[in-house]
Amino acid sequence: MFTFYYAPGTCALATHIALAEAGADYTLKRLDFTKAEQQAPAYLAINPKGRVPAIVSPRGILTETPALLAFIAQSFPAARLAPLDDPFAFAEIQAFNSYLCSTVHVAHAHKMRGHRWVDEESAIAAMKRKVPQSVGAAFDLIERDMLRGPWVMGDAYTIADPYLFTLARWLEGDGVDLTRLPRVLDHRARMAMRPAVKRAMTEEQIA
Amino acid sequence: MFTFYYAPGTCALATHIALAEAGADYTLKRLDFTKAEQQAPAYLAINPKGRVPAIVSPRGILTETPALLAFIAQSFPAARLAPLDDPFAFAEIQAFNSYLCSTVHVAHAHKMRGHRWVDEESAIAAMKRKVPQSVGAAFDLIERDMLRGPWVMGDAYTIADPYLFTLARWLEGDGVDLTRLPRVLDHRARMAMRPAVKRAMTEEQIA
Repeated sequence: MFTFYYAPGTCALATHIALAEAGADYTLKRLDFTKAEQQAPAYLAINPKGRVPAIVSPRGILTETPALLAFIAQSFPAARLAPLDDPFAFAEIQAFNSYLCSTVHVAHAHKMRGHRWVDEESAIAAMKRKVPQSVGAAFDLIERDMLRGPWVMGDAYTIADPYLFTLARWLEGDGVDLTRLPRVLDHRARMAMRPAVKRAMTEEQIA
Repeated sequence: MFTFYYAPGTCALATHIALAEAGADYTLKRLDFTKAEQQAPAYLAINPKGRVPAIVSPRGILTETPALLAFIAQSFPAARLAPLDDPFAFAEIQAFNSYLCSTVHVAHAHKMRGHRWVDEESAIAAMKRKVPQSVGAAFDLIERDMLRGPWVMGDAYTIADPYLFTLARWLEGDGVDLTRLPRVLDHRARMAMRPAVKRAMTEEQIA
């Protein structure tokens, strides 16, 4: 049994989908970011970083999307969410997820979380202006070089897929021209039809 | 046999150290960032992201530090660089490395790579001003909550250690007050004595 901490509209959706895909037994704990619940002492005791997602497991607490996705794949091998016996193929998935985490999500975060990196309002506004370009450039690379199709890694559905789906849901809000990303949009539409995706989105009340 | 692409002074050092710790057979390819070799067509054909590190293996190309570190640990199990049969303990290491990649390194990158996220020179300057605070806050969390000691994960040396060492080498340049990080500095000094660390730094001509 896991307790899964999330907030709707965040990257936690990727892990939520993976839990559903894996058939994991989980309880949901929703945080209200509009009330800054992720910064409240009760949650900081669970995740001192004050972010989602977090999983409380019988062994302890885990955070960080790429780590959680690999953990779910390894903990539920029957779900076949990653090639667990092939370090190279596993690393390809991890490289994709690391790119989403440290480049794509970070570019997106400059729209709403600019205060992490600057204090001046004018600089925060400058960051927001560039988000369509920086997020767009990252997705151009995914479109052209990284997304194999029909799933990220090709024929096999893996833990890279819910993560790409989750971040691709932010494209409109980030002001990226969608016409240049037909393969990403095709992947997003294919993902939306999966039962585990529907379940996770329903549970987060965003479907 | 791996071909390892790096540039001195970058996060590639973490993977380089792990290769040396693992006893891997590798050839080095040094990129000169002052000549923008990471953006030259010859290298973009290897890594279209235009960044280091990258490993060219007999199976193909891999990038992204957290993925490469896990790949090395899994490919050389005899080196015991991660608890490969324990998904929870493996995930703890991956969570630590993901934090280094997506929070610590990203905070640091606002000093020299601000053009990724803004166009205006004034905003780039504003980013630089906040680096001591943002990097410092991330290391405060490592110092207080994450670094178990003597190694990151406790008694066992893992792939989290060379990564922390590599980013901790940037603290002085980032203007962080070192007196508040005695445990991080102790770890850095302990790392510097390891033969694999000495070898990697000598090979990068930074020792």
